[in-house]
Amino acid sequence: MKLKVIKIGGKVIEATASCKHFLNEFSKIKGPKILVHGGGNIATKRAEKTGVEVKMVDGRRITDAVMLEIVTMVYAGVNKKMVAQLQERGIQSIGLTGADLNIIKATKRKVATIDYGFVGDIAENGVNMHHLDYFLSNKITPVFAALTHDGEGNLLNTNADTIAAEIAKTCAEKYEVELVYCFDKNGVLLDEFDDNSVIGELSLEKFKGLKENKIITAGMIPKLDNAFESIRKGVNKVRIANFKNLAGGTVLKR
Amino acid sequence: MKLKVIKIGGKVIEATASCKHFLNEFSKIKGPKILVHGGGNIATKRAEKTGVEVKMVDGRRITDAVMLEIVTMVYAGVNKKMVAQLQERGIQSIGLTGADLNIIKATKRKVATIDYGFVGDIAENGVNMHHLDYFLSNKITPVFAALTHDGEGNLLNTNADTIAAEIAKTCAEKYEVELVYCFDKNGVLLDEFDDNSVIGELSLEKFKGLKENKIITAGMIPKLDNAFESIRKGVNKVRIANFKNLAGGTVLKR
Repeated sequence: MKLKVIKIGGKVIEATASCKHFLNEFSKIKGPKILVHGGGNIATKRAEKTGVEVKMVDGRRITDAVMLEIVTMVYAGVNKKMVAQLQERGIQSIGLTGADLNIIKATKRKVATIDYGFVGDIAENGVNMHHLDYFLSNKITPVFAALTHDGEGNLLNTNADTIAAEIAKTCAEKYEVELVYCFDKNGVLLDEFDDNSVIGELSLEKFKGLKENKIITAGMIPKLDNAFESIRKGVNKVRIANFKNLAGGTVLKR
Repeated sequence: MKLKVIKIGGKVIEATASCKHFLNEFSKIKGPKILVHGGGNIATKRAEKTGVEVKMVDGRRITDAVMLEIVTMVYAGVNKKMVAQLQERGIQSIGLTGADLNIIKATKRKVATIDYGFVGDIAENGVNMHHLDYFLSNKITPVFAALTHDGEGNLLNTNADTIAAEIAKTCAEKYEVELVYCFDKNGVLLDEFDDNSVIGELSLEKFKGLKENKIITAGMIPKLDNAFESIRKGVNKVRIANFKNLAGGTVLKR
């Protein structure tokens, strides 16, 4: 059976209009689906409102105890709001973190040169398929916030792209999985300033070439590296698409 | 089969020490159980931190759009933290609002003399037993935040005592239900200044007498009125107990 795992970033869900647009598109998807959402920039704004300093290293958030408190509230709150809005659209859904049903187990990131704080790395085989499967079989759409837990009472701030990829890989044992990363661009672009220069299909070979020729650069590289890794681990298809067109964009092939 | 529905107030869960104490006690309960928690005073403090005015009428919160945002974040955040802490104690649990699985449907309170804003009144037969039963049958403990939804995309701030009572009444169709209201006193007291003056058993007759003689007053009256109403509607037993002793306190009898 087919399953779509859709990841949506915080930037899209932050604005009421784009969030609604996305939820309308998401609601149209037929068959089993899972939603994973971020919310980092909403947490940043909330922190600034309360005078909490936001510390970032190489674009990654340092999540100390105070920041974890904010991230937990923001992500969990956004999560439940999205569930209410999906119910409005007739989508039977449930809002989850990794702690719920012990569904995603992670470990606190080890301190190397940088202490990222309460940040989770998902454990090997950390996604529990059992209850997830109950939801999917009963036409219930799981909606995941970017939080996991360590089993020792702590929630952990966890990259939403990674959560989506790990869920997709685990579900690939049973489902034919399409993993969709949505954002506000039209896909992987040949020219980052031309939103019409979308690469329709991208093989690993082609990706390597574009990387060597510095056509694909910077932020897109780790995303695509991880996407090809998901394919290698059993995910059928990965798509990089605009949140307004979930069937468009760039499709990564084996 | 027996089922315990435990309601815990925000005052107990706000302080780390009392919250841990409560969760330890809660974890010891054998058999199916459901937790319902408040968090109003945590929301109040969070609002004050961000300079949002807290408006109360007769001890009830006015929940405008800005306050709903705060209440949603705080309740949902506390909810997920409690789930992580229950997992730590080996309790397989899941954090829910009424929007999840459309499990508690409510309507926005009509404006009479006062506009309470986004406050929910639970609909007649508003609690859906189906998925709740899946969780209970699979030894999963549902943990409810004091939020319901209107089916039109809005979360609604909803009294936690009421949520606990409505869940208890619905579950009474299938289970032998004990509803426990926990707080920081030892039970219903004959003398509010003497924490040892606990009434062990309270019948409706006795309650009426104590009310007439003004021994039971103020805040306890609506709580007990609602508790006796729950019993009339099928709940087997209602207990008013200290969070440190969930098997003690005052037991309300038919």
